[in-house]
Amino acid sequence: MYRSNTENGDSPTLPLRRSPTPSHRDYNLREVPRIGDKIAARAEDGRVFFSFEYFPPKTGQGVVNLYERVDRMARLEPLFVDVTWGAGGSTSELTLELSGNIQRFFGLDVTMHLTCTNMREGQVREALEEAKRRGIRNIVALRGDPPAGQEWYTCAEGFEHGRDLVQYIRAHYGDYFGIVVAGYPEGHPAGLLDGKLTYEQELHYLKEKVECGGDVIITQMFYDVERFLQFVADCRAIGITVPILPGILPIQSYSGFTRMTGFCRTHVPPAVLAALDERKDDEDAVKAFGVEYGTEMCRRILKSGLVPGLHFYTLNLESTVVAILENLRLIPKFESVRSLPWRPATIDGRRSEDVRPIFWANRPKSYLLRTEGWDDYPNGRWGDYRSPAYGEWTEHHLLGGGGLYTAAQKERVRTVLGTPQTLAEIGAVFVKYARGEAAAPFPWAGEPLSPETAWIAAALERLNRHGFLTINSQPRVNCAPSTDVTVGWGGPGGYVYQKAYVEFFCSTSKMESLFEAAASSPEFAALSIYAINAAGEQRTNVRKPRTNAVTWGIFPDREVIQPTVVCPESFKAWSKEAFALWIQNWASIYDHEQGTPAEQRSVQLIRDIHDTFWLVNVVDNNFVSGDIFKVFALIS
Amino acid sequence: MYRSNTENGDSPTLPLRRSPTPSHRDYNLREVPRIGDKIAARAEDGRVFFSFEYFPPKTGQGVVNLYERVDRMARLEPLFVDVTWGAGGSTSELTLELSGNIQRFFGLDVTMHLTCTNMREGQVREALEEAKRRGIRNIVALRGDPPAGQEWYTCAEGFEHGRDLVQYIRAHYGDYFGIVVAGYPEGHPAGLLDGKLTYEQELHYLKEKVECGGDVIITQMFYDVERFLQFVADCRAIGITVPILPGILPIQSYSGFTRMTGFCRTHVPPAVLAALDERKDDEDAVKAFGVEYGTEMCRRILKSGLVPGLHFYTLNLESTVVAILENLRLIPKFESVRSLPWRPATIDGRRSEDVRPIFWANRPKSYLLRTEGWDDYPNGRWGDYRSPAYGEWTEHHLLGGGGLYTAAQKERVRTVLGTPQTLAEIGAVFVKYARGEAAAPFPWAGEPLSPETAWIAAALERLNRHGFLTINSQPRVNCAPSTDVTVGWGGPGGYVYQKAYVEFFCSTSKMESLFEAAASSPEFAALSIYAINAAGEQRTNVRKPRTNAVTWGIFPDREVIQPTVVCPESFKAWSKEAFALWIQNWASIYDHEQGTPAEQRSVQLIRDIHDTFWLVNVVDNNFVSGDIFKVFALIS
Repeated sequence: MYRSNTENGDSPTLPLRRSPTPSHRDYNLREVPRIGDKIAARAEDGRVFFSFEYFPPKTGQGVVNLYERVDRMARLEPLFVDVTWGAGGSTSELTLELSGNIQRFFGLDVTMHLTCTNMREGQVREALEEAKRRGIRNIVALRGDPPAGQEWYTCAEGFEHGRDLVQYIRAHYGDYFGIVVAGYPEGHPAGLLDGKLTYEQELHYLKEKVECGGDVIITQMFYDVERFLQFVADCRAIGITVPILPGILPIQSYSGFTRMTGFCRTHVPPAVLAALDERKDDEDAVKAFGVEYGTEMCRRILKSGLVPGLHFYTLNLESTVVAILENLRLIPKFESVRSLPWRPATIDGRRSEDVRPIFWANRPKSYLLRTEGWDDYPNGRWGDYRSPAYGEWTEHHLLGGGGLYTAAQKERVRTVLGTPQTLAEIGAVFVKYARGEAAAPFPWAGEPLSPETAWIAAALERLNRHGFLTINSQPRVNCAPSTDVTVGWGGPGGYVYQKAYVEFFCSTSKMESLFEAAASSPEFAALSIYAINAAGEQRTNVRKPRTNAVTWGIFPDREVIQPTVVCPESFKAWSKEAFALWIQNWASIYDHEQGTPAEQRSVQLIRDIHDTFWLVNVVDNNFVSGDIFKVFALIS
Repeated sequence: MYRSNTENGDSPTLPLRRSPTPSHRDYNLREVPRIGDKIAARAEDGRVFFSFEYFPPKTGQGVVNLYERVDRMARLEPLFVDVTWGAGGSTSELTLELSGNIQRFFGLDVTMHLTCTNMREGQVREALEEAKRRGIRNIVALRGDPPAGQEWYTCAEGFEHGRDLVQYIRAHYGDYFGIVVAGYPEGHPAGLLDGKLTYEQELHYLKEKVECGGDVIITQMFYDVERFLQFVADCRAIGITVPILPGILPIQSYSGFTRMTGFCRTHVPPAVLAALDERKDDEDAVKAFGVEYGTEMCRRILKSGLVPGLHFYTLNLESTVVAILENLRLIPKFESVRSLPWRPATIDGRRSEDVRPIFWANRPKSYLLRTEGWDDYPNGRWGDYRSPAYGEWTEHHLLGGGGLYTAAQKERVRTVLGTPQTLAEIGAVFVKYARGEAAAPFPWAGEPLSPETAWIAAALERLNRHGFLTINSQPRVNCAPSTDVTVGWGGPGGYVYQKAYVEFFCSTSKMESLFEAAASSPEFAALSIYAINAAGEQRTNVRKPRTNAVTWGIFPDREVIQPTVVCPESFKAWSKEAFALWIQNWASIYDHEQGTPAEQRSVQLIRDIHDTFWLVNVVDNNFVSGDIFKVFALIS
């Protein structure tokens, strides 16, 4: 929504440490699409899209939660997300940081709000420069409201209206930024209140904003669909031709709804008011009505054929919006819409990146960080070894997925990991994870288990019970349709494949037995095994270690895509991280000195494993009929 | 053999026009392996290899024939071939040209002979420089025999012995060249004749040659296996450790045999002499004995385990050597040994090239010529369109496959193409080619039909009878073993795939009917069609024309390999060539002005087709279950 988040003037505490920002070089931004182009491209597809708006939270924990939520909601494939502007000081810094990180790590295009309220020209310029530096190519240019209790003031340079900001951006940045402007189906609340501007005058100003450079209009929230449709018709009538997205704020609570509609002077149809009044003491009923009415609104809007997509004011909440999208069948339930098995990045030269090592499959953000310095990214094939180019692994703190824990996180993690006293108890923890039963982040995974793991969960469980502590795996897939809801990716009409993969820690004797067993019969000839320990010693049964594509897809009118590889050299870089996580993400949850004897024993056990175990990966090259687990049956 | 080809002092007429030699830049030679390394790498595989020696023919037609033969024998995958040195003048130029072209166009590593007999230092230097410029990395360094009727002379700089040449090469080129030296299992004929050198002294000189820089020894021909094995043992005894290859000259004719063994003073076991004397009036019987005895010799040599491979003095002949190799089972009959579906080039930066457009599948040399100026070659994926980088197509003359014809070639071609008077008769010619019945080069193919075409020959025949004049095709292949003798490539343990492909000329109405038929039912949704005419007008049913991989393979411990693509932009470059071949390779065989009325009508018909027909390619993206020919049944 078009409100800056400074109602009480608080600046939120910046959470944890600042994430690294690129300093040595500017991002290569050429390829990040501007919103107008992106909507036009999507329109060609004929598919309705949706987008989400978030605001900068006020607490560190809020920020952590928001990152997790955005990451989760990214799986729904919004066309873009936007982050509202926290006018003034550290809140605006947080907007920049959130926008930059979401674009950088979550594979989402971010449209950043920028309000000119009480901003001096230098501050606007600084915000735009910083946005540019962080890879942002799209700005929602707003006038904004004055912070509570403050008066408007207009700067010397003059940012009285949204139009002024649009002009400023175009004057100083040309076509660099895509620009969204605000539309008010019911007129601007301030204008209406003061009686300063008529609805027609507002429309005229909107047309000016578009003529000055606005590429797309997103409307203020509304609950009266007829008014919105009339607004679109009125815009078209006076020659506004850019896409208009309805701003949808699902009703999530009674108090929130009345507060918001009051503040924004939103017209609420009497039937809606009556329905809400009926339910006002039953939170669940209000929510249910919110989903129902939101769905109904969206249906009518989409039926009009006047809009290419829907923009949701999420209020940083998830369930109501998701429920509406499910009702509208805009979230695919039965077909995969993944473009690649992993979420592609949207910044840098990374847009053409389409190959990654499998090792970081559950820690994609760590991979993004460690490869951030690369000048170009593998495209089509992995090619030459790149291990020397991996950034050193350092514990990173932001974005979840196994950095140093906060005290609250430590507690949550401990309930899952417990205080194992024996190897068997360690194995039991891995079993829990392999089953998808672990509620907290697993030391080696910042991501939830992929659904395909269910196919091999029983086999993985057996391995873990026998001392092979699995941290990554994928089942064999031979010619599955690319729309398969579990393993599909890449769009319709293609076929996808996987070589079975499993990666685990195990003792030296287990590792040696595995090599012996694999060599014992030609039926295991298709198994490629690499092992490495914390000291860097290596073993393999592969005569010519080379990069092995383990996931690939064949599509109409395309070259072969092979998004996941096992690269022996990258495995070395990964192994350092994988071993360090024993200490960093597991041993660290106990108090090493003041802990209970049980805790101390857990620490010692984990250290022993770190020092003596091997990290092993196995690929079954027989993707047609192999059984990667069979060889383990030979090992007692 | 170690004889220069100047017995009668004739210099052969240089055939046709000189092939273009690179002038604007030196070849990038880093990647051409030296022979010692290549043998060592092969030894790791544990597979016995073989190699062929050719000599520069004396006539233009002889050169054309030799190119065809070398091209054919290249399919047997010799480890290398060598070309003997034509001492003096234009014959040595021919050696350089043959060596360079074979390496450049046939995907074979060439080891070039160089003799220092009667050469001045400047001439040696010049020959080595030219060899280097043409991409040769391996030299057989020989003293050589004096031209018939001339005396030896030793140059001021001193090239008295093979050793001197080896030293010279190492002194001036370091390790740039791999060097082969000659070994004489029975002593050097000159030495033996004059009684100047004992066998032991010869061995000593050989050791010196190796110590000066010889990487590999190839022996003079012999017929007494025991002497050869003794020779190897003697070499090892005095500390010669480099690989020793036996030089095998199969007995091909009685007169040739006696002349050669006489000249070289080769010891022939009495039993062999007796057997030959018995058969001396029966040429076939001599040949059969030659195969039998050659096989027997090779078996005994290989059984000794003392040699990594066999070197054949082919005398530019084919059948006897092939028969021996078949007997030895060194030529794979039941397994594919192709590393890629097309023969990779061995020069330039081309060694890593592993993707080509399908269009030039039957004209690989034209493709090599047109892409010679590229700075790098597609590796792993085709990537961005490269069409602007194609060299203009110009008729090229060398190496067969549809350049301007000699008078004799014209005659041969005419017997196949005839003087068609109607479109139906044109179609009948294409039918003949599709059936593999055409004996002469087809206008669009310098290569014989690939065996897989037999799978779809009947369907292609139907197309040609219905006015779709096919010039290129491949059947659908879904997960065939990579060792499949017909469609396999890439080595054992993998699986190969193909999308069905067919390319043809047809009339405008046929072309339009095809697009209509393809659009008429969802069952044809997987067909991608591109059409273009001689004027450059284009049609397609593909929404986003992109490079389409139509052949690919999945191998253990490898990235995906996709050697053949349909690239829409390359199709444009190819179409110019394909249309021009109607005129260049077909209309040109008739006398345009003095020809018979029938000939004149053929010319007119061909010109009409050139002007009005379309070149069309069709890919069936459904490689799992598609039938690319089904849609044509809808077209009357």
